Amino acid sequence: MDELSERVAAEAAVLAANRDFYLAFSNGDFDAMSRLWAAQAPSVCMHPGLPPIVGRSAILGSWKQILGPAAEWELSCRAPRAHVFGNSAFVTCLEASGDKPAHLAATNIFVFEDGQWRMVHHQAGPLSEPIPARSSRNASN
Amino acid sequence: MDELSERVAAEAAVLAANRDFYLAFSNGDFDAMSRLWAAQAPSVCMHPGLPPIVGRSAILGSWKQILGPAAEWELSCRAPRAHVFGNSAFVTCLEASGDKPAHLAATNIFVFEDGQWRMVHHQAGPLSEPIPARSSRNASN
Repeated sequence: MDELSERVAAEAAVLAANRDFYLAFSNGDFDAMSRLWAAQAPSVCMHPGLPPIVGRSAILGSWKQILGPAAEWELSCRAPRAHVFGNSAFVTCLEASGDKPAHLAATNIFVFEDGQWRMVHHQAGPLSEPIPARSSRNASN
Repeated sequence: MDELSERVAAEAAVLAANRDFYLAFSNGDFDAMSRLWAAQAPSVCMHPGLPPIVGRSAILGSWKQILGPAAEWELSCRAPRAHVFGNSAFVTCLEASGDKPAHLAATNIFVFEDGQWRMVHHQAGPLSEPIPARSSRNASN
């Protein structure tokens, strides 16, 4: 593959990992969430409004608490953009409950670890004005 | 340098770039802010409450607007943590106005471009409960 094809393929793989994150959330699937977070690379997670949670064990503990109730509603990811830098990448996107207006903006960082893209950071923060589904599907500035 | 020394040196350089970001902000120094953001790598910026701003030109436009009034108050960075992955790195930290309790959590992503660490992403989001200066200096849970 040439450089452009490689980048496109890497971006697609990162976006697939990003989809897996929202799927694990929406399905309340703790095992899938656990597989998604990096096993070796140091990781951090910032849930909306909360201070950083540092380290895989504490992060997964927080997801264990969240995923029970979250199983009852879908967390949609809209307008994801992937940026790949070698073995790490970040995605920016908007988050919404199902078809409702997007109410959060998020950053998800991944590293390529053991042959797959795994999460090392997630931050979601509230939007002052929710963005309707139609416009948030391609939202940027 | 061995691998550990290299990592420690890279983390220190990333934290220095992160300090430059808060210094540029606190000084209302648009030129320093402009030098800090990546020139080649694609960049995104999420100010608190706002949707993603995509691309260097639009991002610097937003900083131009912000830095005038911001020149009058200091944005402190507390409890920064650097994570380096080859030529990219991210920092998580808390943000506060001067000595006040930290009221924002932030993610800053850097790439090594033209011999220096330059910013490609910034997200800051509000904390539900501000964290007093004393405990936020080393905050993580």
